[in-house]
Amino acid sequence: MDIREIKACLAGPMKEVAALQEASLKSDIDLLDATNRTLLSQGGKQLRPMLTLLSAGACGGVNADSVQFAAAAELIHNATLLHDDVVDGASERRGRPTVMALLSGSASVLLGDYWLVKAIRCLLDAKQYSERVLRLFAKTLSDLSEGELLQMQKASSGDTTREDYRRIIYSKTASLFEASCLAGAISAGAPEEWTAALAGYARNLGLAFQVKDDILDYTGGEGIGKPVGIDLKEQKITLPLLCALESVPGEEASAVRAMVVRIADEPDLAVQVRDFVVEHGGVEKAVDEMGKYIDEAVFCLQELPPSAEKSYLAGLARFVGERTF
Amino acid sequence: MDIREIKACLAGPMKEVAALQEASLKSDIDLLDATNRTLLSQGGKQLRPMLTLLSAGACGGVNADSVQFAAAAELIHNATLLHDDVVDGASERRGRPTVMALLSGSASVLLGDYWLVKAIRCLLDAKQYSERVLRLFAKTLSDLSEGELLQMQKASSGDTTREDYRRIIYSKTASLFEASCLAGAISAGAPEEWTAALAGYARNLGLAFQVKDDILDYTGGEGIGKPVGIDLKEQKITLPLLCALESVPGEEASAVRAMVVRIADEPDLAVQVRDFVVEHGGVEKAVDEMGKYIDEAVFCLQELPPSAEKSYLAGLARFVGERTF
Repeated sequence: MDIREIKACLAGPMKEVAALQEASLKSDIDLLDATNRTLLSQGGKQLRPMLTLLSAGACGGVNADSVQFAAAAELIHNATLLHDDVVDGASERRGRPTVMALLSGSASVLLGDYWLVKAIRCLLDAKQYSERVLRLFAKTLSDLSEGELLQMQKASSGDTTREDYRRIIYSKTASLFEASCLAGAISAGAPEEWTAALAGYARNLGLAFQVKDDILDYTGGEGIGKPVGIDLKEQKITLPLLCALESVPGEEASAVRAMVVRIADEPDLAVQVRDFVVEHGGVEKAVDEMGKYIDEAVFCLQELPPSAEKSYLAGLARFVGERTF
Repeated sequence: MDIREIKACLAGPMKEVAALQEASLKSDIDLLDATNRTLLSQGGKQLRPMLTLLSAGACGGVNADSVQFAAAAELIHNATLLHDDVVDGASERRGRPTVMALLSGSASVLLGDYWLVKAIRCLLDAKQYSERVLRLFAKTLSDLSEGELLQMQKASSGDTTREDYRRIIYSKTASLFEASCLAGAISAGAPEEWTAALAGYARNLGLAFQVKDDILDYTGGEGIGKPVGIDLKEQKITLPLLCALESVPGEEASAVRAMVVRIADEPDLAVQVRDFVVEHGGVEKAVDEMGKYIDEAVFCLQELPPSAEKSYLAGLARFVGERTF
């Protein structure tokens, strides 16, 4: 099974999701409308609305509210990317110039706010469970800010622990995966066991997804659309480095951590830290851990009754493990 | 009547509003929690929650939901300020360094997102009318982004009309005033005529408030806590300049507009434009127009039954006209 097969089976509802996003974002302010259209045309992986729709399908079937929630999930995702680009000072995203590079950081902030609010409207416009799903996504948005700020704090102290890392990647990525799946299940009126199973699936999938992202920052990948080595440049300690640090005596680990917090002033230190990661097999160990998250994600699905969507969700998990972008 | 008298009469519920904001913002991320506490301690005018509480009072009485909505209004206001500071590159606000200056632009974006989401939570936690009031504030947030982006677009084209200006100041300021008053009226279960009256009051008050802000950018004012002349520096055509432009022949006006769009490259042109505004009595005319908005705001209140809160709302309108900060 590959991602195209899953996309093909979702083609109908995904078209509705795209149309709803487009309609929601419409504005008579030229600058805003033109930028929205450019962003929409660039697409992206659309993983989150796919998760919502597949979860709804696996719990009995997609309905109009599933589409509302799926559109909201993607709008929120893109809103956070617009804000992330400002946070990261990113000039490229998905291999194209960001709004920040094309217009300005301030435009990116305002566009992000606009997309966020349109997501809220999509949630409010659902016929049922609006409030419950709004609370879910509100929690996710709170997680996102907290996660980024924790990462920011840790970048200057250099003392990121495994627990911190787990919280950061959950907040940055897995929380929205979880909300996307739960929203789908809720739209289909799923019983408690199924929503719990999908939450577990999504959480593990999201953790795997972010670990993969952090691995790609070390290894690079075809079509990744962003430069390699950004994390270290920003003094972020991610899983490959954490794994390498765990394999050496405490003193040596402390010395490497001390190097990381000096990277902003002495960029060449990043090369040394990178060599340290390679030398101690940090990437391979991180790949192993990612594999465990993927397995756990697939395992969680067994609570669900058999369906095409269930097998697509499993397929999606394997795709996340294998992606090189 | 002065603002302190109004504040004194609202002391009880305003304390609840402050406590609710503080509780909502609590986080175990040190960087976030410390910054939140600093921001809360700096306060601000608290006009928006006062509007919510006075509107509720004028429509029958403040209840727990009025407090929820009032806290949300102030959280949203501060969230937009955190984003505005990034948009404006502001290093000072209320006479103190901004989060952007203390930490970074990215921290200001993330803090803003966090405050926004906590506002949504306050709205969701109301016992009644959550959805209706959420829709109101969602519209306001959409207005805010659109208004800022329209202003950004017009700053480079230099063709701001009166209609554009009206839309910009409505979106930037009056829309949130309107939502704040409406939320208060709704919390008190006000009949349609009263909510309409309060919407009219708030809209005109908000327009007056922003016009005053734009006037202060020309005249300066004690304790204004921000430098003068920022608007022209950013090529923004506001009411004093619009009034001056209207008093000269079309050709001369076009020449001045052409100067404005070159200010970013030739900052000295701002002095010439400023002199032009002074020479043609632009500030005095803008003060007159502001006075009309204030009168209209007070006029709208006549639909409401007599109450202390009603007279406080009128007092607040006069205060907005007279403020020098």
